[in-house]
Amino acid sequence: MMRTRPLKVALLGCGVVGSEVARIMTTQAADLAARIGAPVELAGVAVRRPDRVREGIAPELVTTDATALVERGDLDVVVEVIGGIEPARTLITTAFAHGASVVSANKALLAQDGAALHAVAEEHGKDLYYEAAVAGAIPLIRPLRESLAGDKVNRVLGIVNGTTNFILDKMDSTGAGYQEALDEATALGYAEADPTADVEGFDAAAKAAILAGIAFHTRVRLDDVHREGMTEVTAADFASAREMGCTIKLLAICERAAHGGSVTARVHPAMIPLTHPLASVRGAYNAVFVESDAAGQLMFYGPGAGGAPTASAVLGDLVAVCRNRLGGTTGPGESAYAALPVSPMGEVVTRYHISLDVADKPGVLAQVATVFAEHGVSIDTVRQQGKDGEASLVVVTHRASDAALGGTVDALRKLDTVRGVASIMRVEGE
Amino acid sequence: MMRTRPLKVALLGCGVVGSEVARIMTTQAADLAARIGAPVELAGVAVRRPDRVREGIAPELVTTDATALVERGDLDVVVEVIGGIEPARTLITTAFAHGASVVSANKALLAQDGAALHAVAEEHGKDLYYEAAVAGAIPLIRPLRESLAGDKVNRVLGIVNGTTNFILDKMDSTGAGYQEALDEATALGYAEADPTADVEGFDAAAKAAILAGIAFHTRVRLDDVHREGMTEVTAADFASAREMGCTIKLLAICERAAHGGSVTARVHPAMIPLTHPLASVRGAYNAVFVESDAAGQLMFYGPGAGGAPTASAVLGDLVAVCRNRLGGTTGPGESAYAALPVSPMGEVVTRYHISLDVADKPGVLAQVATVFAEHGVSIDTVRQQGKDGEASLVVVTHRASDAALGGTVDALRKLDTVRGVASIMRVEGE
Repeated sequence: MMRTRPLKVALLGCGVVGSEVARIMTTQAADLAARIGAPVELAGVAVRRPDRVREGIAPELVTTDATALVERGDLDVVVEVIGGIEPARTLITTAFAHGASVVSANKALLAQDGAALHAVAEEHGKDLYYEAAVAGAIPLIRPLRESLAGDKVNRVLGIVNGTTNFILDKMDSTGAGYQEALDEATALGYAEADPTADVEGFDAAAKAAILAGIAFHTRVRLDDVHREGMTEVTAADFASAREMGCTIKLLAICERAAHGGSVTARVHPAMIPLTHPLASVRGAYNAVFVESDAAGQLMFYGPGAGGAPTASAVLGDLVAVCRNRLGGTTGPGESAYAALPVSPMGEVVTRYHISLDVADKPGVLAQVATVFAEHGVSIDTVRQQGKDGEASLVVVTHRASDAALGGTVDALRKLDTVRGVASIMRVEGE
Repeated sequence: MMRTRPLKVALLGCGVVGSEVARIMTTQAADLAARIGAPVELAGVAVRRPDRVREGIAPELVTTDATALVERGDLDVVVEVIGGIEPARTLITTAFAHGASVVSANKALLAQDGAALHAVAEEHGKDLYYEAAVAGAIPLIRPLRESLAGDKVNRVLGIVNGTTNFILDKMDSTGAGYQEALDEATALGYAEADPTADVEGFDAAAKAAILAGIAFHTRVRLDDVHREGMTEVTAADFASAREMGCTIKLLAICERAAHGGSVTARVHPAMIPLTHPLASVRGAYNAVFVESDAAGQLMFYGPGAGGAPTASAVLGDLVAVCRNRLGGTTGPGESAYAALPVSPMGEVVTRYHISLDVADKPGVLAQVATVFAEHGVSIDTVRQQGKDGEASLVVVTHRASDAALGGTVDALRKLDTVRGVASIMRVEGE
């Protein structure tokens, strides 16, 4: 039975994502109404530049006064697609206080202040949904929070930043260096003029914090996420990866420790085997691999960014929140009951690929192997290559803690016979 | 805030899936309680063979009288993992009538009687959830029904039967024939003693009916699904596929017609390009590719069967249904408002790979090409191979309707120069 009074939706931000949300709300209005059980009406759009022409949006809906919009008091849902911390945070809390539920695509804000925002939502009995904050169109937060609610997730391993995946894929497929691949990504619009948030892993770290919290039913703050960017990945690293049957991806990795009592979250470039499903994720696509006790290995794949894909996720949330509202209920809120400590990077256990420049003389391998042994890091394979008095040693380890590996590398640097540590890269997905 | 009165759950069936559901309900009881907001209690287990020892299940909970169990009147949720049409259907409707919501893994029943069961659930204000009915552990029904609720799905293309994927993967990777690969699947427990439901596509067709209904917000009955099995796929077909840069998969394909006013659903073996994400789905894994207007191309991948993976999906539904119950609400029910007609197979438009045995003499290609042209089927490529007066012609068409292709093949069979039609296979995923 269709209710006739429409649900009122305000849109904060009308850029690449917001304009797509508004467009779909208009063009798919009949379908949205049928799926929700009531029509939805765009009640206002807060923008920074009111003079810009916005196709399909009635000019009288547009305002620069976002605060007045969220304070109206008659809104059912506020959709926040401004991004950044402020004014988004204040607008969202104001929206809750004035009776609206909130759909957000704001990964930075959710990663930093998710717990506080959930608390405000709960205090006012409202929904806070944010599927679009992680991996764009890919249904990921809902599957983790609901489909896997009866399972125990042990690991989330994902490519959650399309810009860096485009760059790394380009380096892999063409042999290009980092700067050349970045330039192409910029020219094609995949990288922003200032690519720092992407290439230094800040964007992926925010997503890792959100995913870890949901996957493990605990709180993981942005500061808890170990972060390394991918600007130092070289063509030589890709060549080394190929020799191991691997490629290199910037991964967000959230893990439950083997003993189960703590979790870790990290973002860094890593080698993964070409046989791993994540290895074949091309271009700007995202994919997230989830391992759980009962389900086993799942993967979710799709476009991780872009106006229409992100709008798809926003609208899925909008339909859910509107249905909840009509049913006089709310969806699952924050689930952080497990309250697990987040272990530092030193406690992460994984494998390592280390390239050393060494003197080409007898006994070097013995010296190097001794250092690994003294730090409790077991060697899987070693490859020696020498020419003209210089030589390189490539060591792949068995699983060891990051702290033990760090100690090993520090000690290696002090050896007279080690001229330099050319690269250290973790090996994941095995 | 935790409620102390537990939610009561009855389990119908305690085989491979049911025993895993019971095990996880016990071992993960604290987590389930925290996620639901109240403890869940196993109130009864209906089985056929009561004398079998069931580890972890108190003997006094076990009964052979499933009807009495669902008529108790104090149950919150009935989990049906018996399978088949009866007695499952009667037990589920009885459960609704006695106040319980239902979680089912029963694809055959949902495909045949989903609309009627949804109506009974709605009549009694109860939930009917069945994530486990399609693609085992892979979250698929919830993403389609909720995450993509604000989007327009145009196509669902999936490997939804692990047994046949195991067989086809084996044929592809080893060059084995169908029977040899089936024998190995049987020996390893991937195929049942009577593999008919899998290899003839009945299982996949049930899943296609369910997926098409949810994806397009319409009703698709099992009878609406065109079904062809994969028992006639040969090693020669795989060789032909390789020459085209393809492999062969048994696909469930649900499509919205280009004009948007009707849908189709079908199951048959098809060639897909090796570059398509579905091509690299190995062994008994399942994967479903979804194309929608806004989200673009999504893929969901994971184990499509097995006790623990299926139990993961059942328990995700159980948590959701219990939460709804505590909140005094129900989740989204059947959404069939679009009421789109299902077009017959003849109206499906796709590409075809046809192998003909022909006389090795001049003019044959011209004759064959004329037949294609007369039926309005445009040829993409032709390859001729001749030896000893016999020759083969391999024709790959552009997109054409199944009816036009069928007419073409009938006419080809009547040509004196065509000795036989060796194989016809559709080409998908391009």
